[in-house]
Amino acid sequence: MKIVVNGTDLSNAVMKVSKAISVKTTNPVLECIKLSVKGDVLTLSATDMEIAIETSIRSDTFMEGDTVVPGKIFAEFVKKLENEEQVELSLEDDNRLKIVYSSSEVYLSCLSADEFPTIRKDLREKAFSLSQKDFKDVINKTVFCCATDESRPILKGCLMEIKDNELTCVGLDGFRLALAKKRIRNSSADFKMIVPARALNEITRLLEKDEEEITFISEDNILLIEVDGTVFTTRLLEGEFLNYKQIMPSEFLSTVKISRQTFLSSLERATIVAKESKNLVKLEIKENYVNVKANSESGKVNENILSVLEGKDIQIAFNAKFLCDALKGASDEFVNMYFNTPITPCLLRPYSGDEYLYLILPIRIA
Amino acid sequence: MKIVVNGTDLSNAVMKVSKAISVKTTNPVLECIKLSVKGDVLTLSATDMEIAIETSIRSDTFMEGDTVVPGKIFAEFVKKLENEEQVELSLEDDNRLKIVYSSSEVYLSCLSADEFPTIRKDLREKAFSLSQKDFKDVINKTVFCCATDESRPILKGCLMEIKDNELTCVGLDGFRLALAKKRIRNSSADFKMIVPARALNEITRLLEKDEEEITFISEDNILLIEVDGTVFTTRLLEGEFLNYKQIMPSEFLSTVKISRQTFLSSLERATIVAKESKNLVKLEIKENYVNVKANSESGKVNENILSVLEGKDIQIAFNAKFLCDALKGASDEFVNMYFNTPITPCLLRPYSGDEYLYLILPIRIA
Repeated sequence: MKIVVNGTDLSNAVMKVSKAISVKTTNPVLECIKLSVKGDVLTLSATDMEIAIETSIRSDTFMEGDTVVPGKIFAEFVKKLENEEQVELSLEDDNRLKIVYSSSEVYLSCLSADEFPTIRKDLREKAFSLSQKDFKDVINKTVFCCATDESRPILKGCLMEIKDNELTCVGLDGFRLALAKKRIRNSSADFKMIVPARALNEITRLLEKDEEEITFISEDNILLIEVDGTVFTTRLLEGEFLNYKQIMPSEFLSTVKISRQTFLSSLERATIVAKESKNLVKLEIKENYVNVKANSESGKVNENILSVLEGKDIQIAFNAKFLCDALKGASDEFVNMYFNTPITPCLLRPYSGDEYLYLILPIRIA
Repeated sequence: MKIVVNGTDLSNAVMKVSKAISVKTTNPVLECIKLSVKGDVLTLSATDMEIAIETSIRSDTFMEGDTVVPGKIFAEFVKKLENEEQVELSLEDDNRLKIVYSSSEVYLSCLSADEFPTIRKDLREKAFSLSQKDFKDVINKTVFCCATDESRPILKGCLMEIKDNELTCVGLDGFRLALAKKRIRNSSADFKMIVPARALNEITRLLEKDEEEITFISEDNILLIEVDGTVFTTRLLEGEFLNYKQIMPSEFLSTVKISRQTFLSSLERATIVAKESKNLVKLEIKENYVNVKANSESGKVNENILSVLEGKDIQIAFNAKFLCDALKGASDEFVNMYFNTPITPCLLRPYSGDEYLYLILPIRIA
C-alpha cells in the first residue's frame, strides 16, 4: 500500500470512524482503524463489534493494499496534519505504516488487515426513510429515557416500530417512558427493532443536513444508514421489549394545561434545594395554579405557576429531574399533564397533537 | 436586613465572589457568602482565608443588616434569577434568608454574620501600576511554571520583584523556570513578594479591560487589587524564594534561531508517540536544521525543522511538554535557544529583546 491523500480529508475521515473505536477491549484489533486502498479510494473503517463506521476519501494511489493501525494514536497524529496539502501513507515490511509530510516522517506499528472483522453492508430486507430533522427530533425526545444500567440490557435501547408509514420510538427505564412519532416514507414493510441508545446518539451526530432524507436499512439484526459516503451500522438488541401499551393509562381524573418553560424554570430552582433530598418535589395542583414545593436542610422553595385544571385537585410528588427531562424533551409552548392518583403515573403531552408523550412514575410519600 | 435588588446585578456579583468560596474546609463559614447592607449598597464577600473577594451592588434598602448564606446553593439559586427585574432578600428570625421573586419564595438557612472573618482592605504601604494587558501577559508567560505539588510550598507562587520601575515575575518548579518583565508606573518603592499562583490566575480572570491600568497595593503580607468595584485580596507566601539568578548560565556554546510555531507543531506531533516514553524527545541541532526524534513502542517521529545555528552542533533530550509549554508562553515569531552541554539547562528567549526567558533542564540519556 502506498498513497498520497489530502491532510484535511484524512483528518475528517479519521475523526468520523474514530467514534467506533473500542475503548475497552481485550482484542487490540478493535482499537484500530483499518485502511484499505482500491483504485483511487482510501476506505477507513472501525468497529467495536456493536457499531461500525466506514468512510472513504480520494487517494493518489501508487500501490493498493490494506493495513490496520492503532486508532487512538493515528487519530491524534492525523489531527495535527489537517493543514498539510499532501500526506503520504505507505506500508513497510507489512508491520509499520510510514507517514510522510513536509520534510518529516513518522512510523506507526500496525497489525495485519486479516485480523480485522468483516463489516456487513449488504443489507436490504427492510427499509424506511424520513428527513434528518424528523429523525433527530424523535431521538432527542426519547433516547434520554433509555436505561443506563445493565440490569435489563434490552432497555438500553429504543424500540422503533414501523407501522402504516409511521415511526414510533419508545425509550423507558422503569421510572419513566418517552414516546415520539413521525410520518415516514418508502417503508418496505411493518417491523420492529430495538436500537442501542449509543448508536442512536452517534447517528444523530452524523446528521448535518436537516432537510435531507435519511434511509434506514435493516436485515439479520443489523441496522445500516449511509450519510454523505459514511456507512454506519449497528447491531440491534435482541429480546422482547416491555409491552409499553399495557402500562399506558387510558383515562385520567385531572388534566392541567401549563406553560412548559415556566414550569421547567420553577422545577430547576426547586431542584437546587431538592438535591439533598433525592430531587423530591411536591406538586399541589389547584384550579388556577400548580404549587411547586421543595424542602431540605439547606432551604425551601415554594412557587405558584399559573395553570388551568380540568377535573380534581391533586397532590403528588416526583423526582424533579424526571419532570425536567420530560419538559426539556417536549417542544411546545404549552403542555398538558394528566393525573389520576398520587401513586399512579402522570402523562405529559403537547397541548395539541399527539407527536410525543412522557409517562412518569410519582414518588410515594407519607 | 430587607432589600430589593436587580436579579442580573445580584447574579453577576455572586458569580464574582464565588471564586473565593472554600471548597474543602472544616469551617462552614468559609463556604459562605456574606451579605451586608448599608445605605443603598449591598456588599457581598467571600474568603477561604487565602484569597478574599468583595463586591457591591445597588440595593433598595428597607432595613440594613448582614447575614452569611451557604455559598454554593445561593450561587446556584441566584443564577436562575438572572432575568428577574426585582429580587427581594430579607433576613427572618436571624437564621433564614427569604428570597422573593415573581409569585415565588425561597428560604435558605443562614449563619450569623459575626462568625465571618474580617477582610483587611486598609493597605497602603507599597504600590505599583501597569496596564491590565501587560499584567496578564507577564502572568500568562510565567504562572504555568509554578510548582503544583506541596513539597516546596514557596514554589507554588510567582516571585514578583518591583525594582527601578520594572516588574520582574518568576515562576519555577525545579525542572524549568519562566521569567517575564514589564515597565510599571507609580511604584512606591522597590520590594519583593511571592504571590500564590492560584491568586494570580483569579486576578487575570477579573481583568477585562486590556487598556486600563491596574494598581497593586501590598502591606503586611497581603496584596490587594481593585477592579471595577471588586476588591480582591490574597495572602502572600512567606519564606525565601530560590535565588534564581544563581542558576542562570551566562555563556553558551550554541545559539539556534528557530520559528516558534513550526518547532511547537513538530514537538506536539512528537509528543503523541513520546507519551508512552515520558514525553522524551531528542533534538539534534545542526548548522541548518533541528532534528526532532521521538520513539516508543507504538511509533516513531523524525522531523527536520529549518533553523540557524551559531556555535557547536549539539544533541540533547527534553521532556517535550516543558519545551511545548515554553514555546506556547513565548509570543514572538522567532525565538533563540541557547545551549551548552546535553546536561546543562537550555535557555529560550525572544529573537530580539529580553522581555521574557525560559530555562529548561534537559533529560540525561545514555
